[in-house]
Order: sequence, then C-alpha cells, then structure tokens
Amino acid sequence: MLNFKEYIRVVEDFPQPGIRFKDITTLLQNGEVYREAINTLKEQLSDLKIDMVAGPEARGFVIGAPLAYALGTGFVPIRKSGKLPYRSIEADYSLEYGKDKLAVHEDAIQPGQNVLIADDLLATGGTISACVELIERLGGRVVAASFLIELSYLHGREKLKDIPIHTLVTY
Amino acid sequence: MLNFKEYIRVVEDFPQPGIRFKDITTLLQNGEVYREAINTLKEQLSDLKIDMVAGPEARGFVIGAPLAYALGTGFVPIRKSGKLPYRSIEADYSLEYGKDKLAVHEDAIQPGQNVLIADDLLATGGTISACVELIERLGGRVVAASFLIELSYLHGREKLKDIPIHTLVTY
Repeated sequence: MLNFKEYIRVVEDFPQPGIRFKDITTLLQNGEVYREAINTLKEQLSDLKIDMVAGPEARGFVIGAPLAYALGTGFVPIRKSGKLPYRSIEADYSLEYGKDKLAVHEDAIQPGQNVLIADDLLATGGTISACVELIERLGGRVVAASFLIELSYLHGREKLKDIPIHTLVTY
Repeated sequence: MLNFKEYIRVVEDFPQPGIRFKDITTLLQNGEVYREAINTLKEQLSDLKIDMVAGPEARGFVIGAPLAYALGTGFVPIRKSGKLPYRSIEADYSLEYGKDKLAVHEDAIQPGQNVLIADDLLATGGTISACVELIERLGGRVVAASFLIELSYLHGREKLKDIPIHTLVTY
C-alpha cells in the first residue's frame, strides 16, 4: 500500500491551540495519490455488498462521493441541521471541538439497504455514531465505515465496535 | 443523454418563501444515474487537458470530487472562510440569498495549471466568479466550468462569458 501519510500535511494549532490538524488537501491535490486512496478504500470492501455510501459534510463528501462513484452506488449526504431541503430526521452529536446536529432526508435510505459510511477522519467517533444512528433509524444496515485517517489515540473505534473500520493512515 | 431532470426533486419555498429549490439528493441516491451524470460531464470535457478540478463547498464536492476521480486529476476544495487549516487567500461573493467569503489554500494550484470548476448548480454565477478569481490569483487558468443544473433565468452564464459552461439540466 502506498504511504499515504507522506501526502498529509500536519498543521499546528488549528482550529485551536494544541490541535495538530491533519490537512488532507495536499493528498487531494495529487491526482494519482487521491485516485489510489479511493481505489484502496474500495479494495478493502471487496467482500461486501454495498447499496449506498453515506458521508457527513463537508470533508466526508470528498471521500464518500468518489467512493460511491467507484463502487457504482448512490451517495447520501449527511448534513448539518437546516441545510437539507426536504423532510429530514436529526441526531445530536458532540465532536472533537464542539457540538452540533446532523440531518438526513427521511427517504435517503430504504429499509434493509447495506450502507457504507465514509469520512476523511475517525477521531472520537462522535460524528460517525450520529451517522450510524440516522442510518439505522431509516432502516439501513451500516456494514462498514471507511476513513482516510484514524486518530487511534482518541479511541473512536471503541465507540463503533460492531462496525468493521477501514483506514489508510493511523496516527 | 439521460433525462437527468427526472431525478431532481423540486422543493417549494426552500430556503426562503418563493424559492423552488432544486434538490439533487434524489439523483445522488441513484447509483446508476449519479455515475452516468459524472460520466456525461467527463465526456463533455474530452477535448480539454485538465490538471485540476476545483469545487466550492459543500455540494460542489459531490460533483467535483468524483469528476476529479473519473478524470484522474487532483481536487481542490474551495471553502467558506475559516475552514481551511493552512495559509489561504479569500474572495468576497454575493449569492442568490446571502453574502459570504470563499477561501482556497495558497499552494492549492500551481501557476499555469488548467483548472475545471465543478458545482451542482449555476445560479447567478456569484459563487463561481469568486472561484474564478481565487484560481486566477494563484496563477491557474480556468478552462471550463461544469454543473449538473443551470438556472438560465438567473443569467449566471453572462457573468462567466470567457469560460465554456457545461450543464446537464436547464431550468
């Protein structure tokens, strides 16, 4: 596997003092590496039947949308409260630095569909737990979650213990 | 060409009374139609050499990121002010309902690169004009702009007259 970590830039003190932010834009800018990252995430899922990819805004779209394209599935945007135009359901969540609500259209997922969650980064698992809650309330089954990056020292994996987790880079 | 309009849901009075919002999530949820939309946008660009795709958050990511994947180029996220971790340049813009600032990392594009702008919807052209300004300030050449939807009655195309515009659906 390509050493994807080389293409990620660490920015000190963003968005708060003491946070070493993992900047994926340097990876995204490299067409070959970006493509290889999506392809590797796809290969990790080759034993699963996936009906739909869901990703939280906004960086989750940058991973989830091309992964849906590569898998040939639809894509469900999970958005901040108030952004989706149609009837939606909402879930509260707390993230690494703050609190918010996530929403999904009530007809985004059909009962029984196998759903992959995709995002750029697994930190505390707060965002992803809210995504799982929303998908399951719509009757979907979360069959795996794929991330470019895992911050293993934040133990997000423990919060998602029934869900197979795939990542390309671990800090 | 597939009749993509059939897959777009019109939501009345969102985000304000009188606005007939074009909801693309119904198209995105359909894996075959979403894939065909990205492939058709790609085919419309077949005579161009494109080095990079840039798209404004958040819906621009849902079009631009898979299009970059399909083209084999990098992707540059253009974000709201304060979201990007590294040194950025900013541009003001006014959009259909509101005002804001867009930002891009100062090293996102190299001078002389051919850049495609991708977004879900061309409305007044305010967002896209700000994207053009940012890309050109970094030395990039905007060689085309691709949209799922054009609201032709808002005349965004006139604001972008030097740039070839490609769309799949017109209202």
